[in-house]
Amino acid sequence: MGGKTLFTPGPVDLLREIREAQTRKMVSHRGNEYRELHEQVVENAKRLFGCGEAFIITGSGTAGVEACAASCIRKGETILVPHNGIFGERLREICALHGAKVISMEFGYGQGISLERIADEIDSAKPSVLAVVYNETSMGVCNKLKEICQYANEKGIFVIVDGVSAIGGHAFNLEEWGAGICVTASQKCIGAPPGIALIGAGEEAIKRIKENKPNAYYLDLKRYIEYNERKETPFTPAVSLLYAVDSALKILLKDGLEERIERHRRAGEYARNELEKAGFGLFAEKGFWSNTVTSFKVSSPAEAESIKKGLEEKYGFTIAGGMGGMKGKILRIGHMGNFKQKDLEKCIKGIVALRG
Amino acid sequence: MGGKTLFTPGPVDLLREIREAQTRKMVSHRGNEYRELHEQVVENAKRLFGCGEAFIITGSGTAGVEACAASCIRKGETILVPHNGIFGERLREICALHGAKVISMEFGYGQGISLERIADEIDSAKPSVLAVVYNETSMGVCNKLKEICQYANEKGIFVIVDGVSAIGGHAFNLEEWGAGICVTASQKCIGAPPGIALIGAGEEAIKRIKENKPNAYYLDLKRYIEYNERKETPFTPAVSLLYAVDSALKILLKDGLEERIERHRRAGEYARNELEKAGFGLFAEKGFWSNTVTSFKVSSPAEAESIKKGLEEKYGFTIAGGMGGMKGKILRIGHMGNFKQKDLEKCIKGIVALRG
Repeated sequence: MGGKTLFTPGPVDLLREIREAQTRKMVSHRGNEYRELHEQVVENAKRLFGCGEAFIITGSGTAGVEACAASCIRKGETILVPHNGIFGERLREICALHGAKVISMEFGYGQGISLERIADEIDSAKPSVLAVVYNETSMGVCNKLKEICQYANEKGIFVIVDGVSAIGGHAFNLEEWGAGICVTASQKCIGAPPGIALIGAGEEAIKRIKENKPNAYYLDLKRYIEYNERKETPFTPAVSLLYAVDSALKILLKDGLEERIERHRRAGEYARNELEKAGFGLFAEKGFWSNTVTSFKVSSPAEAESIKKGLEEKYGFTIAGGMGGMKGKILRIGHMGNFKQKDLEKCIKGIVALRG
Repeated sequence: MGGKTLFTPGPVDLLREIREAQTRKMVSHRGNEYRELHEQVVENAKRLFGCGEAFIITGSGTAGVEACAASCIRKGETILVPHNGIFGERLREICALHGAKVISMEFGYGQGISLERIADEIDSAKPSVLAVVYNETSMGVCNKLKEICQYANEKGIFVIVDGVSAIGGHAFNLEEWGAGICVTASQKCIGAPPGIALIGAGEEAIKRIKENKPNAYYLDLKRYIEYNERKETPFTPAVSLLYAVDSALKILLKDGLEERIERHRRAGEYARNELEKAGFGLFAEKGFWSNTVTSFKVSSPAEAESIKKGLEEKYGFTIAGGMGGMKGKILRIGHMGNFKQKDLEKCIKGIVALRG
């Protein structure tokens, strides 16, 4: 059974209530009991994103991101993709795959993306779409999304947001900020099991989706718009996971979205302070700190491995290593969803104790 | 809670053991505990399909079908798609969307597809791929797949099989029969909750997948081949659902795949006999009867509705109506996965009693 407490950047540990929600009796996805469940999840997802329409996709966060790109991108249109990590690179690749003329703006790993840093490129390239990752999970960097969305909105640029590891952990309001479409996934700040992507969409997104003809079937959101009207999904959804997502969203909204974000913010602050005090270098650029993933530098791949392994074996905590080119150079602590502050404290004390 | 017993063509009712498997502690999908789970599901899926490679996709059966089509179809190649229902039409649409020159062969709803009926078209059209639904869920018709696969194999034609509602309920052996790639879904004959598609692939499929460049990211099986080597999936999988699928596959294989198929065959035979005795007309052509979905004719949409509703309210069973153009004309009983014979008997007695 293992029984490690997860401080990975998703999946996260589950509250007993959320975990047990999965065992409710199976129902047909074309019946009234399902429709009630569907409606509740969609309504709560709209509140989470701050927008008028939301979709449920059975799949990972990446499936959700691809659904947005495939469904909203018009063939041949110019899309600016500033990126500073693995998920930004993935977003760039997905946009190109679905017919965009992509202008790629590469930032160094660990560096943040702000309006100031991309405004000139927006002004000169005049893209019709901007696609950006809110919180770059692979680097623990949170980009300055709000000011970017507001500027893009003024210029009539449609913004696709990969909010997978941000929504519920950082402030966001799709309609107020002027974003176009945004994705999150069940196993991150919401605190449910993995397997469901949630998408929030504004009016411009709906228009784009309805007019578009993507090279995608399962991930074509046009079908999800149609079926949302009857409180169903076009394809069989993961009903038992939706019970868990429903439970998790109700807990989140009952506690309060702002309180959930504040809890994530405090966790990030705590992690950074303790790690710095112990002499670890933080990896994310100052001012671009993530509330949900803290990345810190290690001196060698051997140290990375020995901290990860020691934490599992001696303390019972799982954290994550670096992804891609950052493997062996950084470690990442995910503090998302249902984590307990006292476990986070024990986890970080363990890391400090294991340091070479 | 509702508490209806499901005789829908998926999702199916869950055994307590399978349902509770979902509540196991969450683990990281990049750790050893997950790798063990992954390996067991993949190994058991290979036995289920009778082939050397299997993939796990978080998504519905349609996501799995699209993954096969997107990953195996070479742009512009000629694909013959004989079809006799909603899922066959969907398969045709997906093949065309992913770049095939589709030759569509339409059979009447309720009619079966056999080699005899498509051999001339195969010989004259000389397709490089044949895509076919094994068991047409929407009509309760089982096509004669074995002879079709064997003939195609002799001619060097690659066969894509939508086996979603067939695998585990009808005989199948990918390598012995000469099929190329085949999909099933967790919520059908396997008897697990919905949300996971399983794909079985032979050598020719692997070759096609590796060489191909699909317009798909999440559903590009090339990534799944790479990650299978390290017993992982490229994108976060629905870990809690995989616990249930693992449990369900172990139960299935322990009871025996042949016994599982035989149990489905007997259920179909029982349902047909009882319905015919009561004066209902069977919808599927004689000799193309499905082991997993029995479809029967009703005299009017009002009768369809009153039987469905009466069954729910008086007897506590949920069955399915007709899909698309067959709505109000047929009803469908799914007998798949974990159903109990005595419940099936009560369900059919209820249908007979409710008849106008």
